[in-house]
Amino acid sequence: MIKFVLDGKILKQFVNCCSVISNEGLLRISSDKWRSIISDPANVSMIDITLNNDAFEVYEFEKEGEEEEEKKIGLDLNKLADLLKMAEKEDSVELVIENNKMNLQIKEGEGRELRYSVLLLDAEVIKKENDPPQLDPPAQVIITGSEFNRACKAAEKVSKYISLGVEEDSEGGNLFYMEAKGDADSVRLEINRDYLIGMKAETVRSLFSLEYLDQINKAYSKNSEITLDLGNDYPLRLTFEIADGFGECVYYLAPRIENYE
Amino acid sequence: MIKFVLDGKILKQFVNCCSVISNEGLLRISSDKWRSIISDPANVSMIDITLNNDAFEVYEFEKEGEEEEEKKIGLDLNKLADLLKMAEKEDSVELVIENNKMNLQIKEGEGRELRYSVLLLDAEVIKKENDPPQLDPPAQVIITGSEFNRACKAAEKVSKYISLGVEEDSEGGNLFYMEAKGDADSVRLEINRDYLIGMKAETVRSLFSLEYLDQINKAYSKNSEITLDLGNDYPLRLTFEIADGFGECVYYLAPRIENYE
Amino acid sequence: MIKFVLDGKILKQFVNCCSVISNEGLLRISSDKWRSIISDPANVSMIDITLNNDAFEVYEFEKEGEEEEEKKIGLDLNKLADLLKMAEKEDSVELVIENNKMNLQIKEGEGRELRYSVLLLDAEVIKKENDPPQLDPPAQVIITGSEFNRACKAAEKVSKYISLGVEEDSEGGNLFYMEAKGDADSVRLEINRDYLIGMKAETVRSLFSLEYLDQINKAYSKNSEITLDLGNDYPLRLTFEIADGFGECVYYLAPRIENYE
Repeated sequence: MIKFVLDGKILKQFVNCCSVISNEGLLRISSDKWRSIISDPANVSMIDITLNNDAFEVYEFEKEGEEEEEKKIGLDLNKLADLLKMAEKEDSVELVIENNKMNLQIKEGEGRELRYSVLLLDAEVIKKENDPPQLDPPAQVIITGSEFNRACKAAEKVSKYISLGVEEDSEGGNLFYMEAKGDADSVRLEINRDYLIGMKAETVRSLFSLEYLDQINKAYSKNSEITLDLGNDYPLRLTFEIADGFGECVYYLAPRIENYE
Repeated sequence: MIKFVLDGKILKQFVNCCSVISNEGLLRISSDKWRSIISDPANVSMIDITLNNDAFEVYEFEKEGEEEEEKKIGLDLNKLADLLKMAEKEDSVELVIENNKMNLQIKEGEGRELRYSVLLLDAEVIKKENDPPQLDPPAQVIITGSEFNRACKAAEKVSKYISLGVEEDSEGGNLFYMEAKGDADSVRLEINRDYLIGMKAETVRSLFSLEYLDQINKAYSKNSEITLDLGNDYPLRLTFEIADGFGECVYYLAPRIENYE
Repeated sequence: MIKFVLDGKILKQFVNCCSVISNEGLLRISSDKWRSIISDPANVSMIDITLNNDAFEVYEFEKEGEEEEEKKIGLDLNKLADLLKMAEKEDSVELVIENNKMNLQIKEGEGRELRYSVLLLDAEVIKKENDPPQLDPPAQVIITGSEFNRACKAAEKVSKYISLGVEEDSEGGNLFYMEAKGDADSVRLEINRDYLIGMKAETVRSLFSLEYLDQINKAYSKNSEITLDLGNDYPLRLTFEIADGFGECVYYLAPRIENYE
């Protein structure tokens, strides 16, 4: 018997983070948390998202065998995200997993319930999980979600790619920049160290695809704090909290090699 | 001389109810009310809508001959609904019917008027009215418009059809349910008798097309009370008030015969 | 060195007025103002828009030669309007023109800047400016932007053209009317002299294309005062203030010759 009860808002956030990366994915359920590691079809980006059992009102997970530490179930993420649109933010959602079905019960207040029964996907036929990369990026910048999102939107006006970097400013301090160059036009956003939430400075620069960043930009809320770990022609690690800190979404994006002119 | 003055809001509601069913329809004007009986092109659904003369500020209808009890005029419902978008809710609308024209005058406050002149359709070439069915459904449920609409939206996620029914709950009381089954997934909304606005209980179940329900769902306001009269594999009768009770819209929908597995 | 600093809101309004007429245009910069004269590709409509140096926080324009009174630069208006969507209303924008580049710097508050660098178009290859017509229209009407816009929207329901006119009302006073006639239907908005912001009365009537009026209707704000100068089968001159009165947009539209039945 596997049963969970949690806020509709938290479940929506978890599922949305997963569904921006892929249409389907594995959910690993263990005694203390949910975890999903999902790569996009081209293996350019990946998320590693966890939700602790503290985020749940009810968390009932009993191992079926002594040897089994966790259960993997296959989810149709797009369908699940679509169904959860029916849950209001304040609704509580009960999830029961039985045989090859997930029963979702959205409690809309006393005396009325909306119940979905959804077929689970066969965990064996879902795209294999990749191992999250072991990274040691030299620079770190913490900014608000709205600011990062806005810079990406500005960059899209002139290019498909954006450089994220840290460099010295004219006064010997450090600044974080996001830069995009088109054929004739360019855009650059600079933020001084003093106006960032946090910074670990080292001169770095890497180029990333805006198409991929756009996907993860849909997953966090605008007032989230976004931690960017950066290196030179090095993968991006972008981290934000979910469920008021009871969970975390770590996003990885491979760099593009820039042709320095 | 036929002349009416009424709130833009009321006229819009009347026309919208008609226009969700068909592009054109007959309006029967008699000394005490307006009435339209309109079927969709496939004769699966029908509305029978009335608006009493109490809903009007001015209601001038003089019979042209002694033998004539009512006048039938043909309306291009889509065009009329489109023109009425120009009327603000608080605007008063004057309607004068002369020869084969309807003159609409939207009074937007002192000193300014918006006037439309619209050709009436030939009442003889409009689809004949069907007789509203004589029904005697055993069960009745009264719920809010927003709740009925939400259940239909939830059902659309998994199927094109929805079952509406009443059955006993586990404690010997009664509950109303709306249920949809897809190939692999299903959705079910249950509301306990105590949480309905009203109920006449009898175990019933009928299946309806969500495509048709979607049309009438656009016609009522979300906080209307919706009365559903139900039977076993029996037509649905869905009733709601218009014009603050000075009119009524009765909607009929043929059932689909369910293949019980 | 050419450098300007102004409110994002004012720059957006200037660029929007230009971009509804054409995708590209010339900006004439002189020591006391900006001015653009832009015709649509078919030469049916034209704007003549000016923005005084009083509207700017910084206005640095130094003539390159003694003989040169003004500088003409070519702008990709659509791209510029698109980039300026990134500026919030309260943001201040710095514009520096150097060689064949325009550098835009949107200051989003202390410590952060968004910079665009945009290639200027070759002023020689941009569509030649036409001379604004010298008009002496006998009638004038001043109404709110929202009212003019609403009448155009109402007229579109029945026709592609709208007549604007002034005539005597039944009591010997004057009224302004906007009228459209379709094959079977017609619409007419009348506003009494007393309910207009202003009027210079003379019996006139001209017919205009709603497709063109729709474009300029996107350029002014709904609570602007719109001055319409009208004659008989005569061009329309439509004028409104921009930048709180520090600039003006004058729009000209050629009449269509009406076939009086």
